[in-house]
Amino acid sequence: MADLSTCPPLTRGSVQGAHKKIKQYIHLTPVATCQTIDTIASTAQAQRCPSTGTNVLSETAPHGTQHDNAASYTAKPKVKLFFKCENQQRIGAFKARGAFHALSRLIEVNGLEAVREKGVVTHSSGNHAQALALAAKTFGIPAHIVMPKISTPSKISGTQAQGANVIFSGSTSDEREAVVADVMKENGAILVPPYDHPDIMLGQGTQALELEAQVEALIHDDPEHSVASTKTKLDAVIAPIGGGGMLSGICVALQGTGIRVFGAEPNFEGANDAELGLRAGKRVEKVKTLTIADGLRTPVGHIPWSVITDKTKLEGIYSVSEDQIKAALRLAMERAKLFIEPSSAVPLAVVLYNEEFRRLVEREAGPDGWNIGVVLSGGNTTVEAIAKLFGKPERVEERAAATIGSDGQKVAENVAG
Amino acid sequence: MADLSTCPPLTRGSVQGAHKKIKQYIHLTPVATCQTIDTIASTAQAQRCPSTGTNVLSETAPHGTQHDNAASYTAKPKVKLFFKCENQQRIGAFKARGAFHALSRLIEVNGLEAVREKGVVTHSSGNHAQALALAAKTFGIPAHIVMPKISTPSKISGTQAQGANVIFSGSTSDEREAVVADVMKENGAILVPPYDHPDIMLGQGTQALELEAQVEALIHDDPEHSVASTKTKLDAVIAPIGGGGMLSGICVALQGTGIRVFGAEPNFEGANDAELGLRAGKRVEKVKTLTIADGLRTPVGHIPWSVITDKTKLEGIYSVSEDQIKAALRLAMERAKLFIEPSSAVPLAVVLYNEEFRRLVEREAGPDGWNIGVVLSGGNTTVEAIAKLFGKPERVEERAAATIGSDGQKVAENVAG
Repeated sequence: MADLSTCPPLTRGSVQGAHKKIKQYIHLTPVATCQTIDTIASTAQAQRCPSTGTNVLSETAPHGTQHDNAASYTAKPKVKLFFKCENQQRIGAFKARGAFHALSRLIEVNGLEAVREKGVVTHSSGNHAQALALAAKTFGIPAHIVMPKISTPSKISGTQAQGANVIFSGSTSDEREAVVADVMKENGAILVPPYDHPDIMLGQGTQALELEAQVEALIHDDPEHSVASTKTKLDAVIAPIGGGGMLSGICVALQGTGIRVFGAEPNFEGANDAELGLRAGKRVEKVKTLTIADGLRTPVGHIPWSVITDKTKLEGIYSVSEDQIKAALRLAMERAKLFIEPSSAVPLAVVLYNEEFRRLVEREAGPDGWNIGVVLSGGNTTVEAIAKLFGKPERVEERAAATIGSDGQKVAENVAG
Repeated sequence: MADLSTCPPLTRGSVQGAHKKIKQYIHLTPVATCQTIDTIASTAQAQRCPSTGTNVLSETAPHGTQHDNAASYTAKPKVKLFFKCENQQRIGAFKARGAFHALSRLIEVNGLEAVREKGVVTHSSGNHAQALALAAKTFGIPAHIVMPKISTPSKISGTQAQGANVIFSGSTSDEREAVVADVMKENGAILVPPYDHPDIMLGQGTQALELEAQVEALIHDDPEHSVASTKTKLDAVIAPIGGGGMLSGICVALQGTGIRVFGAEPNFEGANDAELGLRAGKRVEKVKTLTIADGLRTPVGHIPWSVITDKTKLEGIYSVSEDQIKAALRLAMERAKLFIEPSSAVPLAVVLYNEEFRRLVEREAGPDGWNIGVVLSGGNTTVEAIAKLFGKPERVEERAAATIGSDGQKVAENVAG
């Protein structure tokens, strides 16, 4: 990567500069809305209709699930959600932004010929691999991608399809790093890490600039889009956090705008390392989890950590269970008609099911409510993976049984738009 | 319904009139594009990479599947596809258009109070039921929906959620019609049929006006969107046909524009009744099929039939197998990130896999190719239904095995936008 000493400062202006550099290479992804999901999110969990298939209250509510129990008060924030569809970004995820910015910066600092001579290298079996391969191909730079031998075949062929040289390694991080070191030594290839670098962070942050402007334009064109007539813009943005490249980039992008930034994490097997780290005042260095939100299994990187611990930049991080992620994933698909990967459903799950977050919104937003930007970070999953998550036949029966006889009044409409 | 004698003529002008009446009530649904799918569609079937998971050639190619056999020539049309996302329409399907138009016309002819007094009735277990319920609720008109007792619980509760009075019947059409007749007799309720009426057809056709204008604007803003620099608009539109309300409405909407209109059907168990009917010169009156494209199990209605048999209005109808529909459904979800129901995947399946259609495009379009509008008619399915279609574990294994070792060069990119 470009030497840290050459990097632009972590400011909104630098994100704007990054956006100028990369916007010709990336898609301006759409912003979607969905009345049904807004209605569910603006309904107290204890009052939700079972037929929405979304009552996973029992795992989060502080006082149980009895609908008529005064002790089981659940918050009723008023919200309008604006989904930033990075699932429709090139290679199917926001990672294209950081990769194009990182290579643009490398070329700026070292010259195109020098970078082409050395090539670039990274280790990843996920979206970063494909993003780097695409950006490298675009600039005519050789890309070496180190992947564990056991990677999903579709990810291997997807990365090869971008013209990258895939090199196999063992599965442990030591084994992967040893192979990367070999490639760097042999070819002089330049390492492009997935998140722990300012150029990556600034690139990922560019989506927040777009989201901010797109929501203002939507509300300008049709004031009905806003949660309240007094509001012409976003009040908050919530995004997933794995390594933290994206969330920290969004924090930097929105500083000084008055738009609050929140992070969202799975809490299965300690995957909520950022939340726990913030609580303990110390970065968690290792995470071992098999959460279905497989893009978020990584601990937060050093430089992202330095951003998200700044309370003027990040308001807080909230986490959700596997069942809550699945329920949000279902709603995004069935109601908003958006095909996303489980990691992308995590911020929506926080908005729908995390009582701590919902109480905060209820308290801070007041009766006007909040316009909330929800980052859908990517859509790289398969129909087989969806089948594995939802394919248990006994679940279908259960759901059908629960649905019959409900009055169905809670959800006014069945769709997006 | 409004008496036929009061209906506007089946002309483009009438569709424009319908659009003026309903556009405040419906969503202007987005138009999506997907480079990966364009690349696959523009590649001859015999040359496609197995890793795209789309090689279902064996069922359609006239001369077998050997890649090196000169006899197995497969067409290589050049196309750019523009997906009209009616899956993001209100209630999740295009049916909202026809329902709002039908009720607007009823009110125009009879006066709002008279329609409110009588109410409206239909029999449907699908998207038309929810669409009519929504439109009726919007105008404050009572709606009675006759549904078979065995309907999917989520469809029943979805219709009730729109405030409709759901009345159960037996499953045969005689049983359903008897219940409808009772409701008409008891309440004086006005029947709103799902497709066989000019007001419904004109309403459904409005999406073609939007698609036409949206594609022109897309190409105007970025000429890269067009298949060739000489082309500034759509060459063709392909849409599914069940009862034919939508396809005939699109034919009417686009007459005189030079944009050709094609229909797409499943061919499982004779579901391609429109194709077979056109070939025989006689409308098929009964269809009994369990195609996965469950929105297209209906035979074509009388009035739609009178439109689609006019060769100046419809160029032809092409059909596809269940496996081809599944392959197209997979691509729409995994690559374009669009959550759609199986019926919606049928036109895309024709573009990708029907050799007769592909040869026609190759021949008629020449080297410039065609810009093709592809109607995604709805998105009302569930994750469980997707699991049922793709959840066989042995398929995953097969696919993985087929993918390893492929060069993956055919598909340049993994996504939409």
